[in-house]
Amino acid sequence: MKKKLILVTNDDGIFAPGLKALVSVAKKHGKVIVIAPNSPQSGMGHAITINKPLRIHKVDVFKDVEAYECSGTPVDCVKLAKNVVLKNQKIDLCLSGINHGSNASINILYSGTMSAAMEAAIEGTPSIGFSLSDFSFNADFSAGSSFISSIIKNILKHGIPNSNLLNVNIPKLPKSKIKGIKICRQAEGSWVEEFKEAIDPRNEKYYWLTGKFANNDPGKDTDLYALDRGYISIVPSGHDLTAYKSIEALHFLENIKK
Amino acid sequence: MKKKLILVTNDDGIFAPGLKALVSVAKKHGKVIVIAPNSPQSGMGHAITINKPLRIHKVDVFKDVEAYECSGTPVDCVKLAKNVVLKNQKIDLCLSGINHGSNASINILYSGTMSAAMEAAIEGTPSIGFSLSDFSFNADFSAGSSFISSIIKNILKHGIPNSNLLNVNIPKLPKSKIKGIKICRQAEGSWVEEFKEAIDPRNEKYYWLTGKFANNDPGKDTDLYALDRGYISIVPSGHDLTAYKSIEALHFLENIKK
Repeated sequence: MKKKLILVTNDDGIFAPGLKALVSVAKKHGKVIVIAPNSPQSGMGHAITINKPLRIHKVDVFKDVEAYECSGTPVDCVKLAKNVVLKNQKIDLCLSGINHGSNASINILYSGTMSAAMEAAIEGTPSIGFSLSDFSFNADFSAGSSFISSIIKNILKHGIPNSNLLNVNIPKLPKSKIKGIKICRQAEGSWVEEFKEAIDPRNEKYYWLTGKFANNDPGKDTDLYALDRGYISIVPSGHDLTAYKSIEALHFLENIKK
Repeated sequence: MKKKLILVTNDDGIFAPGLKALVSVAKKHGKVIVIAPNSPQSGMGHAITINKPLRIHKVDVFKDVEAYECSGTPVDCVKLAKNVVLKNQKIDLCLSGINHGSNASINILYSGTMSAAMEAAIEGTPSIGFSLSDFSFNADFSAGSSFISSIIKNILKHGIPNSNLLNVNIPKLPKSKIKGIKICRQAEGSWVEEFKEAIDPRNEKYYWLTGKFANNDPGKDTDLYALDRGYISIVPSGHDLTAYKSIEALHFLENIKK
């Protein structure tokens, strides 16, 4: 049987330990190709590069795995993978991560890791973004690895029914404390932000984004609820942002005339 | 009665003619504050700046309107507006655009203009992104201006029921040819992409993104269908990406054990 073709990317960059951890699990399930940014791209969301050229270079970072670094965003990586490196070969699965830090709740919107997976999903490829609720560079990615392996195996076999994208978040816990997996909806949350105001060495004022994430959702079926209780959360996700419940209520705007 | 506070931003930058056109309409409806990027930020999606400081400067670009340029992304502009410039005053409405180029269908995901409006919507502010289906710098923004004014007036009065965000796209037509407004869902579409491959002056290969947009949606209730027939499309939009139809079908993944 032909090996499955698995594209792996991330937003923390080609040298991130989380990417290395994901590649080592992914290669048990098929032929892996890695195309990842050459610098950290956290918070890049669904950004694409349109006003300047992109570069890709083959790099020898992973044992026995073909890998490329790219000068663009995570979404650029997926576009270049499809159109240039793999020249429109069928990709069986796209994996993104393992992200250093949670992408639960609305963080799916800010995350380059999740946007890369979403880009592949828009193109028809089943895609999974994995994130660990630990921002540190040397986070322990081993605790969730047997779950990640089982999720990959199941999705390669069954696909993702009625969707093309999974947002998988893993709590920061030792393996013995992870209780299992919950299928969830995206929690309603928001960032309570502050900008640190300071003066630079040239005497100019600057602002630096900082903030705390707030869970505003009382539901027991959310990703944040599951993570708080020691479960891995999986939110099946899409790219249709239509607020269907608003359509009927807005028909009065069709009465506006010239 | 206290004047409504209206925040205006965009992704084409503080000097874009589309922003000027939107400010001139918006100021008929309240007190306008402009905070826009100091350089073009098309295709920035929901990117935020976390690894470097941001700068804002007051600028005298619009007659009688307080305006600031910001070194960050469109979403950064909205965050700085709320937290620094307006210091958590209640914003009655956020307007973004008028974008030079369509943001219909899945382009809501790539667009900095729509992501800025979405950021304000996540924060609880009713928000509208306006885009004209014309990428040129000197596009004619006057044809849709009476519709834009009426939409702003109506939303200030009634709010956006069951949502907080409208994606408004205006066809490239003279005013006499615009047929009216349609409330729509987001069309399923995709970019058929190519990368132009070339060699730079230092003999290094580079790739430059290019492509054509394809409407893959046969529906007659979509934004692309309405725009093609001479209507302004309005898609009420949200930020919950959960694919609810997948949740039940994925419960088998909860059986994965350590």
